[in-house]
Amino acid sequence: MKVTVIGIGLIGGSIALDLRKAGIASQVVGVDLNSRHAGKAVELGLVDRIESEEKALSSSDMVILAIPVGAICALLPSILDVVNKNAVVIDVGSTKSQICKAAATHPNRSHFVAAHPLAGTENSGPEAALAGLFKDKVNIVCEREKSSAQALGKAMLAFDAMGVKTIYMEAEEHDRHVAYVSHLSHVSSFLLGQTVMDIEKDEKNIFELASTGFASTVRLAKSSPDTWAPIFEQNVEYLGQALMEYIMHLQKFHYHLMKHDSKEIHRILSRANEIRRVLEGIELKNSKLVHSP
Amino acid sequence: MKVTVIGIGLIGGSIALDLRKAGIASQVVGVDLNSRHAGKAVELGLVDRIESEEKALSSSDMVILAIPVGAICALLPSILDVVNKNAVVIDVGSTKSQICKAAATHPNRSHFVAAHPLAGTENSGPEAALAGLFKDKVNIVCEREKSSAQALGKAMLAFDAMGVKTIYMEAEEHDRHVAYVSHLSHVSSFLLGQTVMDIEKDEKNIFELASTGFASTVRLAKSSPDTWAPIFEQNVEYLGQALMEYIMHLQKFHYHLMKHDSKEIHRILSRANEIRRVLEGIELKNSKLVHSP
Repeated sequence: MKVTVIGIGLIGGSIALDLRKAGIASQVVGVDLNSRHAGKAVELGLVDRIESEEKALSSSDMVILAIPVGAICALLPSILDVVNKNAVVIDVGSTKSQICKAAATHPNRSHFVAAHPLAGTENSGPEAALAGLFKDKVNIVCEREKSSAQALGKAMLAFDAMGVKTIYMEAEEHDRHVAYVSHLSHVSSFLLGQTVMDIEKDEKNIFELASTGFASTVRLAKSSPDTWAPIFEQNVEYLGQALMEYIMHLQKFHYHLMKHDSKEIHRILSRANEIRRVLEGIELKNSKLVHSP
Repeated sequence: MKVTVIGIGLIGGSIALDLRKAGIASQVVGVDLNSRHAGKAVELGLVDRIESEEKALSSSDMVILAIPVGAICALLPSILDVVNKNAVVIDVGSTKSQICKAAATHPNRSHFVAAHPLAGTENSGPEAALAGLFKDKVNIVCEREKSSAQALGKAMLAFDAMGVKTIYMEAEEHDRHVAYVSHLSHVSSFLLGQTVMDIEKDEKNIFELASTGFASTVRLAKSSPDTWAPIFEQNVEYLGQALMEYIMHLQKFHYHLMKHDSKEIHRILSRANEIRRVLEGIELKNSKLVHSP
């Protein structure tokens, strides 16, 4: 099977490595507008060679779209225009509603599988690609019923090679969920980074003091703006709502802090503590999530 | 040297391990109001035995205070009342102004060293103690001039055993710096945890989707409320200011997001990106920190 990966960065490069390792791709071809990335991807062995988009698409059995979500929306219809009738086109973008809309009325919609494997690091570019990046992570497929059985079957080969657990969801539902569990985390981290950077102009030594706690909280602020700005823009409705709720919680905390309301501060922190059990997959004992200090 | 550690949790237990390992403590005695923690500390070999506070203090050469910062303020004067004239009392709390004030007029002020070794994990209790937790981290000593040369010399033995790099700072300056690099990170993480927990009441599956990004951003939300509520309360002035600035940045971001101002969103993320170079210790090229996308 000839696989073309459009966008050979952290995500596209990592998928290319997994597909080759699992033996499902006999040829992995890269397409990347960034010529430095393209050269690096060949040098690092992520892809066998670079081809023009036109040439790659006309002869591929599988096309992986791993470019910024705005570019996916813009390119998807023209890609579906020219792919083989046996090919599957899989996008792996972090938003799904607008991408699904971009393909909705296309005559070749059934060739397309809208996916989102939930993994990544704060690094970007081909040098950031890692084999096994997606192992045991969740992969969300949207509008499953609009993809042909053949396209889904082929896509599943790729998902198995990546080691993901695939679940199905409506595109809107996907965007609402990831607004909270992924996009909001990134915004909170980017803005925490900026808040501290603003202070640093006057406080030269502050970064010597950055303990490990700060480093982990601000890790996502290192993520690529080219990747994340379009994600935030496409998910403006749900992210805007999540962000308002986050700001409201911060303001409430600030209010209790300024009032020296120790009991309420302790109660807020104790509630937040429940995240430990949730992340560890332990069932919450109380459905109300509130317990007193 | 007999060392008494008051509060045998993550911090106190880790220090006990380092002091014994370095050979500077011939006896390590624990004091802990929590009898389960006390028993566990002996069982885990963090301390040789548990003693009453009175007995331990009257015969110790070094006292490490590793309890919540409110309790440090409350206990410090009475501890200084009874310690040997050759003993040093070191507190390792995450705030310094109020703790220094609590000891300011005490006749034995010179026996006291106000310190803050900047390290930790999101875990707590004696089971969380780790040898080498502080290795290569920064340790801040405040009001150095109010501690005797003898007390500072003895404290330095402990700091060397912990492997920290000690720097000196005024207590107010310490509290302002850590409000940004440590306390604000914790608040942002606690409230992110709470925001997502609130949604989870209706959205049962959301946590299956928590990608690694969410887990790292929310890691600090697992921290102990007993430790952190008093820290936030004692640092209310600087933390309140840091929190207001953070909220302001989030609101500005929200405004540009709702306006679909792609250019400004990209610019904000790019600025936040500079944190990578700062954390890696690379000098910023531009003092203004602003670069265009």
